Amino acid sequence: MKKIVVIGGGTGNFAVLRGLKNYDVDLSAIVSMADDGGSTGILRDELGVLPPGDVRQCLIALSNSSRLMRSLMNYRFENGGLEGHSFGILLLSALEKVTGSFEKAVEETGRILNIKGKVIPVTTHQVRLKMILNNRKILEGEKEIYLSQEIDQGYKSIYLEPYPKANPHAIAEIMNADLIVLGPGGFHTSIIPNLLVEGVSKALLESQAKKTFVVNLMNRKGQTTGFKVGHYLKETTRLIGADIFDYILVNTQKPSQELIEVYAEEGEIVENDLDDERVRFAPFLGELKEEPRKDMIKRNLIRHDPKKLAQELMKIVNHL
Amino acid sequence: MKKIVVIGGGTGNFAVLRGLKNYDVDLSAIVSMADDGGSTGILRDELGVLPPGDVRQCLIALSNSSRLMRSLMNYRFENGGLEGHSFGILLLSALEKVTGSFEKAVEETGRILNIKGKVIPVTTHQVRLKMILNNRKILEGEKEIYLSQEIDQGYKSIYLEPYPKANPHAIAEIMNADLIVLGPGGFHTSIIPNLLVEGVSKALLESQAKKTFVVNLMNRKGQTTGFKVGHYLKETTRLIGADIFDYILVNTQKPSQELIEVYAEEGEIVENDLDDERVRFAPFLGELKEEPRKDMIKRNLIRHDPKKLAQELMKIVNHL
Repeated sequence: MKKIVVIGGGTGNFAVLRGLKNYDVDLSAIVSMADDGGSTGILRDELGVLPPGDVRQCLIALSNSSRLMRSLMNYRFENGGLEGHSFGILLLSALEKVTGSFEKAVEETGRILNIKGKVIPVTTHQVRLKMILNNRKILEGEKEIYLSQEIDQGYKSIYLEPYPKANPHAIAEIMNADLIVLGPGGFHTSIIPNLLVEGVSKALLESQAKKTFVVNLMNRKGQTTGFKVGHYLKETTRLIGADIFDYILVNTQKPSQELIEVYAEEGEIVENDLDDERVRFAPFLGELKEEPRKDMIKRNLIRHDPKKLAQELMKIVNHL
Repeated sequence: MKKIVVIGGGTGNFAVLRGLKNYDVDLSAIVSMADDGGSTGILRDELGVLPPGDVRQCLIALSNSSRLMRSLMNYRFENGGLEGHSFGILLLSALEKVTGSFEKAVEETGRILNIKGKVIPVTTHQVRLKMILNNRKILEGEKEIYLSQEIDQGYKSIYLEPYPKANPHAIAEIMNADLIVLGPGGFHTSIIPNLLVEGVSKALLESQAKKTFVVNLMNRKGQTTGFKVGHYLKETTRLIGADIFDYILVNTQKPSQELIEVYAEEGEIVENDLDDERVRFAPFLGELKEEPRKDMIKRNLIRHDPKKLAQELMKIVNHL
């Protein structure tokens, strides 16, 4: 059975994992630990736990348990002192407290949810994502970086503080993989943070796995405005230290004009500028289940389709 | 296999269930829904859920899952907005929200914890326990009643508001039981509230089951001060409408003088005044795992031993 290792963070990882879950492969998700927004941020501050947010999404993506258990993991309390906390995040935090280890908490939750494969934190150290912009402003924390509208003006550096060692289990997964999938996902907040952990880039360079980069569908305004496929590749290459990719997956399917307009506040379509035989073009757009409305969360409107992504990735796997 | 139905609330029910769990019997716990203290009270107010506190204790008592899962269910968050909430209670509340039914939530949690037997809320209506004292003071809520020091001065009435119909599943359990066990536990706050639900007393009167009353070890100061076994029986009989009991289990084992003194703030030993062949005397005291200290929760010091209780109850079951 081929071993596929998916590296990323929240929603992007979800699509890849959800799609690949239905195939006969050995799946692992390596997850960024820079998350500090919302419920996760509150628990990091109040309980001193590691950020459970992105991990939760990956666990749900790989879950084979009942629809009820998945609804439970997604349930958010709506009132009082618990307001805004999702149950899955409380479960991970309570298990971290009871077992004394975030990794064990993830493992136990995986057992409760009957997941296929493994979810592995890229590091088990408490870190904060930071960024120094060209205008010398310092952005502190994943949430502040996610909300910034001036990153596309250029930044001097992005780093984790304190500089963390990788989780040895994450490194082992990378070294033993047949295929590694990086992305899609929030570029500065879900993808890059994995590459800032000591030892990850080195393992990516040394691993004999084939490496696939799944390029985002949309640029995020103020973050990657104007980025084309080549920009994503160049920036990733700079951080890893070499262009490691064997395949680059690029979407060819254009959203409806209406959808593009509704999404415009969030960002615009990523266009391809690469003339490279490594690029695999395919239509990757997820179907919308309802008409787009102004009050929908914009960034949820245009997403990768788990099935289409998995089909393309499995073509690669089947030729390994 | 003989069917045993245990009726009560928190800690008392825990001892009976934990003991009987190791025998080859069909076990059900019918649980009072009047709890409104601590974490449970906050969630009742903030989320409008049914009180999960006593149910949680019964689920843990019947659980066959790992020590880790039981620790998780008992884990209490220590900081921030989650402070004081036990994880088990959050699980029950979230499941009630997701399934739309407290009974389903209890069933699902039972599945997660791999419980032996069933836990059944005596009613699925939101109720509050109230008491009108002889001095006309009205006590509102289980917590206020539990903390009152003047109930032993006499009360005019104790009732649930609004007057709730019984959960039909609880009635069915009572009707189909071979043995019914009432008590031990907080007399006004865990035992009596079950008898205040419409239909419960009638079912107890009609059921062909043998009925056992497990009398408390200790009186609670200001609540049952000076009660002897006969008082407990008389008051229970008054509420049910007849003396239904075939067996009355009374402890003969005296705690050490030291323990009696430490406990004195909480209450004194229940003495027997019944000369009745239904009374079964046995030593029921649980062993203390450590020396009693001033800072221990007093009411935890003198408890029924699950094994000893179960041995005596199984003698009855084996003669059915």
